[in-house]
Amino acid sequence: MAKATGVPRMPKRVYEARVPQLRADLVQMQVALQPAPFSVLLVIAGDEAAGKGDVVNILNGWLDPRGVETTAFHELTDEERERPPMWRYWRSLPPRGRLAIYSGGWHGEALAEDPRSRRELADFDHTLRRLAHFEGLLAHASVLIVKIWLRLSQDAQGARLRELEADPDTAWRVSPDDWRSHRDYDRITRLAQRMRRATHRPGVPWHVIEAADSRARNLAVGEILLARFRAHLRLHAPPAPISRPRRVVALRPAGRRRLQALPLNQRLAETDYEAKRDKWLGRLNRAVRDAAERGRSIVWVFEGWDAAGKGGAIRRLTSAIDARDCRVIPVARPTDEEKSHHYLWRFWRHVPRAGRVTIYDRSWYGRVLVERIEGFCHEEAWRRAYAELRDFEEQLTEHGIIVLKFWLQISKAEQLRRFRHREETDYKQHKINAEDWRNRRQWRAYEAAVGDMLVLTRSRAAPWHLIAADNKRFARLEILKTSCEQIAAALEEK
Amino acid sequence: MAKATGVPRMPKRVYEARVPQLRADLVQMQVALQPAPFSVLLVIAGDEAAGKGDVVNILNGWLDPRGVETTAFHELTDEERERPPMWRYWRSLPPRGRLAIYSGGWHGEALAEDPRSRRELADFDHTLRRLAHFEGLLAHASVLIVKIWLRLSQDAQGARLRELEADPDTAWRVSPDDWRSHRDYDRITRLAQRMRRATHRPGVPWHVIEAADSRARNLAVGEILLARFRAHLRLHAPPAPISRPRRVVALRPAGRRRLQALPLNQRLAETDYEAKRDKWLGRLNRAVRDAAERGRSIVWVFEGWDAAGKGGAIRRLTSAIDARDCRVIPVARPTDEEKSHHYLWRFWRHVPRAGRVTIYDRSWYGRVLVERIEGFCHEEAWRRAYAELRDFEEQLTEHGIIVLKFWLQISKAEQLRRFRHREETDYKQHKINAEDWRNRRQWRAYEAAVGDMLVLTRSRAAPWHLIAADNKRFARLEILKTSCEQIAAALEEK
Repeated sequence: MAKATGVPRMPKRVYEARVPQLRADLVQMQVALQPAPFSVLLVIAGDEAAGKGDVVNILNGWLDPRGVETTAFHELTDEERERPPMWRYWRSLPPRGRLAIYSGGWHGEALAEDPRSRRELADFDHTLRRLAHFEGLLAHASVLIVKIWLRLSQDAQGARLRELEADPDTAWRVSPDDWRSHRDYDRITRLAQRMRRATHRPGVPWHVIEAADSRARNLAVGEILLARFRAHLRLHAPPAPISRPRRVVALRPAGRRRLQALPLNQRLAETDYEAKRDKWLGRLNRAVRDAAERGRSIVWVFEGWDAAGKGGAIRRLTSAIDARDCRVIPVARPTDEEKSHHYLWRFWRHVPRAGRVTIYDRSWYGRVLVERIEGFCHEEAWRRAYAELRDFEEQLTEHGIIVLKFWLQISKAEQLRRFRHREETDYKQHKINAEDWRNRRQWRAYEAAVGDMLVLTRSRAAPWHLIAADNKRFARLEILKTSCEQIAAALEEK
Repeated sequence: MAKATGVPRMPKRVYEARVPQLRADLVQMQVALQPAPFSVLLVIAGDEAAGKGDVVNILNGWLDPRGVETTAFHELTDEERERPPMWRYWRSLPPRGRLAIYSGGWHGEALAEDPRSRRELADFDHTLRRLAHFEGLLAHASVLIVKIWLRLSQDAQGARLRELEADPDTAWRVSPDDWRSHRDYDRITRLAQRMRRATHRPGVPWHVIEAADSRARNLAVGEILLARFRAHLRLHAPPAPISRPRRVVALRPAGRRRLQALPLNQRLAETDYEAKRDKWLGRLNRAVRDAAERGRSIVWVFEGWDAAGKGGAIRRLTSAIDARDCRVIPVARPTDEEKSHHYLWRFWRHVPRAGRVTIYDRSWYGRVLVERIEGFCHEEAWRRAYAELRDFEEQLTEHGIIVLKFWLQISKAEQLRRFRHREETDYKQHKINAEDWRNRRQWRAYEAAVGDMLVLTRSRAAPWHLIAADNKRFARLEILKTSCEQIAAALEEK
């Protein structure tokens, strides 16, 4: 039973005359949202005692509860604490066609850091950039984000706190902390402004609402949501068709040259290989356990041509890792739940807990490879993806996750030999299909896209390791060695 | 790098001659599993030091890691602790077409309870019955469960522990606890036998394997898995067509009579209603907060005829509950991830955390209503479901979750009036479609099925509340009152 905060100045009869229409419009909005190609995130944030909780509850009363989810971010659970900070926001995202209300939003958590020193402020700004990126990324994927800030002047806040304290039913809602932040109003307000400035971007603006008059406030929130929804629906009604690119032109030819220049004529005798392999497997086992003991998780990313030997390489890796701590995620066609979310959602959901391992057999790089080449997404989308993928990996590495990215390179002739071999070998036939042959005909396009990927998504913390894989034994050893070295280096650093 | 435990007696060359064929067969099994209409759960449990971890790792080496997930149940996370014990097993289940290996299984956790007193043993037996029920329920849904117990004699165990201690690489694996349980071998072995007896059921037998010879042991595990898989595949190859029942015959006519005898002619004036409603909303708000303070969650289940007013009733409820702690789950067509799991999986995934609320708008009872009537599942399946649903709810209530189940009853004439009204009212047209009219023609069949449900799934902890809903106001008040009373009663009890 939400009691409206703020002293109403709008006459009750004016309010009550307007509410029914607004409610009907909001429910109509939910009906229109269901088949729409986007989700809606409504953030209700604001000054202390401005009535965030009340607004959330009133909205929930107006809306059809079957189409809304309300989320407030309480303390982190241990499953959340073991992942990068944004993981909990990603897991809370609604699928297409649904509305989620965030009480306090991710912004409330950022403000709760309450930065004071110069260093804390720098961290705060970093968090804000991350939030802005998160919102931008969702907005680019057509998610409608409506952010509302309920503003209350210091005087009105004081009056409101006294009013809450006076009523025995609500007195428990006022804590000494509230009074402390009331006295610290100016500083806290400046922090909130800093937050809003950093996250006020095209497509994801802040709507600041005067919250002193609770009735006017409630109506304003509903009307802003409606207006933004209607505009968004008009914009996103017919999804523009994507035309398949006629020719894939390299953005960074240097990347392609690097790929083409890789020598592929390595030799390695079987016996020589086995001795070395066992040595490196032993080291890898030790390295992974060392990482786990320090709560560091490891993410392996395997990309490469069809038949380049990703599966075999992964098998060698997993043979050195305790299977109970390791998960291999084969990235194929997304499930329909995955399809109803942002393309990165399905990768976020598998980010490992502290001390565990996730191996992605193909990965988020599909966005700039197959999706680019086959025209599964718009050009703006895959062009934007380079930054999105860098940011995603940066979040992993900042959290202490060790990210190891491999591209397995083979020659076109070697691929042909392997395709033929698969076709001729009974128990390998399932590993080859028409799509593989189709992809093969796109060799040059892939070369360009892979080259661009190598250049545009490398970073110090998550570099690409280019593996010559015409010789499988050589490739496997290289992967083992590189993995051991990279894990050791990462453990030394932090 | 798993080192085989146990002293091998099988000559190395015999072993090495047999492994390649077994590996090839296992990978072939994975290929055949992918399109199969079931998943495979392989449990590797056994006596201390019998080599569970080694077997798991060896299997992972033999299998294609892209189609396997290995799970070991470590300490509970707080998200798990706040749900009924079986929640973590449900969430770990693989979708159809995939293989999951459980190191220790759920059985290992049960044995870790290490019951000693008579009371602890009774609790242990209760846990075992629950596990047996869980396995039976999955097996009935075509899941293949292969349970392997690795047996080691006390002498062999002692030898093995000494051997592990002697090697600096493995000495860390032996703890004082291991020696303690070695000395307590007889008692622990009897407990394990008791566990196996309780969970050894048709379709989900235990396979006990002598683990002293590690090579023979590894081969035996692989071969049992293969044999069980092949037999299962033959059995489940063509899913038998389900014929729609010609006529739905009540199993418990008393339930239908109770339904038909419910008086529906209540009257309630608008003003009278509003005063009472506000009183009860206030009480409900308090009751839900009381429950939350004690970490008790609440699950509401709403079932009823089309247009019986479920949505409106849920809205009244949610208006009294802080939206941040409450989630409404509209149960409609399952997503494809949900379809690839047991039918209860989608409900388990929404079980609330401690102190939270989940409201199911339609529920697991679809199994014995629409699925029974439309012939979406076999007769054995919906007949079995009554016990499965009772067990599911018992798990919720045993964990302290308050379960409130409502059936909203209206007359056929009132439904017709509401359907017509919906068709004529612009903003309600989305609420009525051809399916509603089709269901209406099945009125008598539904009466029988609902009657059976009321009788066969009532329990003391989760009784059905039959609500006369021709008068919406009356119905809403009844639901509010009943909810308050039931929550208060539940809080007093525990």
